[in-house]
Amino acid sequence: MSRTLMRAEVEEIPEAAARFLDRARSEVAGAAEALRRLDPVLIATVARGSSDHAATYLKYAVEIAAEIPVASIGPSVASIYGRRPRLAGAACIGISQSGRSPDIVAMMQAAEAGGALTLALTNDPASPLAASVGHVLPLHAGPERSVAATKTFVVSVVAGLALLAEWRGDDALRAGLERLPDAFARALGCDWTPLADRLGAAESLYVIGRGPAYAIAGETALKFKETCGLHAESYSAAEVLHGPAAIIGSAFPVLALGADDAALPGLLDTAGRLAGQGAEVFLAAPGMAASATSLPIGPDVHPLLGPLVRIVSVYACVEALARRRGRDPDAPPHLNKVTETR
Amino acid sequence: MSRTLMRAEVEEIPEAAARFLDRARSEVAGAAEALRRLDPVLIATVARGSSDHAATYLKYAVEIAAEIPVASIGPSVASIYGRRPRLAGAACIGISQSGRSPDIVAMMQAAEAGGALTLALTNDPASPLAASVGHVLPLHAGPERSVAATKTFVVSVVAGLALLAEWRGDDALRAGLERLPDAFARALGCDWTPLADRLGAAESLYVIGRGPAYAIAGETALKFKETCGLHAESYSAAEVLHGPAAIIGSAFPVLALGADDAALPGLLDTAGRLAGQGAEVFLAAPGMAASATSLPIGPDVHPLLGPLVRIVSVYACVEALARRRGRDPDAPPHLNKVTETR
Repeated sequence: MSRTLMRAEVEEIPEAAARFLDRARSEVAGAAEALRRLDPVLIATVARGSSDHAATYLKYAVEIAAEIPVASIGPSVASIYGRRPRLAGAACIGISQSGRSPDIVAMMQAAEAGGALTLALTNDPASPLAASVGHVLPLHAGPERSVAATKTFVVSVVAGLALLAEWRGDDALRAGLERLPDAFARALGCDWTPLADRLGAAESLYVIGRGPAYAIAGETALKFKETCGLHAESYSAAEVLHGPAAIIGSAFPVLALGADDAALPGLLDTAGRLAGQGAEVFLAAPGMAASATSLPIGPDVHPLLGPLVRIVSVYACVEALARRRGRDPDAPPHLNKVTETR
Repeated sequence: MSRTLMRAEVEEIPEAAARFLDRARSEVAGAAEALRRLDPVLIATVARGSSDHAATYLKYAVEIAAEIPVASIGPSVASIYGRRPRLAGAACIGISQSGRSPDIVAMMQAAEAGGALTLALTNDPASPLAASVGHVLPLHAGPERSVAATKTFVVSVVAGLALLAEWRGDDALRAGLERLPDAFARALGCDWTPLADRLGAAESLYVIGRGPAYAIAGETALKFKETCGLHAESYSAAEVLHGPAAIIGSAFPVLALGADDAALPGLLDTAGRLAGQGAEVFLAAPGMAASATSLPIGPDVHPLLGPLVRIVSVYACVEALARRRGRDPDAPPHLNKVTETR
């Protein structure tokens, strides 16, 4: 079988991230300056699907690094209910690969009309989304032909974190971002065959994380669903103990994702507890948990970037697993590239 | 088999809601007055598990009825990362049945110290959560002995909506709330046996909704997981078409929940599309979808209350299905009543 589009685009991730960091400096600087001038009381995000997982990642990063609350605004509030949340004094960030989902565009137009500082992260600077906001960060990810978004997800998060680093003058995060393309390349080489072997005929999977890694758990679960036909669901490593653990019986597979941050001890503890209930736990984090199988994770990076590096290994694993399960990674059933939700 | 605790507490829902509406008038009025004085730029919510689904319900209700943005703040930002999101000018609502989850309490203390107007919805007015906030709305739901929260979930939402109605002076919502106990009693009598028959041996289920019904879909999926051991997952009726639909093959069961609001046409359309892909769709909404099985839903109510009425029928179905699947609804595996997440 020739190389799939998905595999090709996953391999482009290091280069796409480097290109964004190189080419979007002036747009990032301009948007960061606008954020400094505003000193927003709130960051609102508007996104769907993979882009909404990017928004969740940025929510944790902003709340942890800048201590500004972040609200995910359901696009339906404007597009379906015809209402306009008051966003004066807020910055509103729309995230969409295509920039063409009508409900995202409608909500961003409402935010702009309501006096918010509006920004778009999109791969198409000529899209309706880009036309409706004050600041555009073009992703420069190149055309994405695979139905499953991979490189645009990663570059969306890189774009948001680059904006955060400039806005806050965070030199450690800036330096971490510059080293990220290399970390992505090494994550691409991590061998997660033990996980793919276990999931060859699996029907269910939990993916757990906490903080920014929780966002990556969400993206991971979505990709296992859409590309492998596996009922994967994400949970916060704290929430999973509140009730969802009830379906974890003998040999139920769990993938635990983490980074070298304050959430790591809790993640390892939860991984160990689930293994103690009989779950088959795979751990992709810098640490060990009793009875869990450790997966390689590549080099140390800035704590806010570690979870993002993990998704590159996930994507490589998902693409390989899809083929093993007899699916074409480039043609998931029932999906189109642009979903025109209203 | 004698009546389970869960069944007994589900049957108490109409009475518990009526008791809250009767006894908490002065606390609701005081908190509403504080919200009017503040005119918050943001409502932040802090909750876990079922209570977080109540928070999601209130998010949609507030964004639709009051056009104020609502952010769910992950308790981990304070308890794990040691950071304090700036919440001056915001109202922060903590929701916890027991009022004893340490991470919820830590975040609410941080919000209070940071100058937010703080409110708690809790069944225990003597709890640490209640002690750490400016305004307490005691749920008056009576002791909850079943591990699966049911009546406290419903009364939490009722409490939040009663606060919204007083804050905004919304007479239609006030009148709707007064009629709610009767609607709950009638929802308890709705026969969802066709759904329980279908799910007797099922392994997966999607539960879909949009707007406030999306929050109820989340609570529904959690209860099917923890009580019935069924891998149920919730999706927004818009999001489900973005990728998750890929695992819906022949006869995959889907439960679509809706109310008589602006999201209904889209929900019915999605239900019909999924049925067209081969899903076995059950519809609990005031409308029809091609090839879907309609479930009875009780009387017409205010659009912001319809989804909440639906959960009472869900709870009755979940309890019956658990027994049919050989599980004790009162003793889900691996769970304790108070989960001490940090």
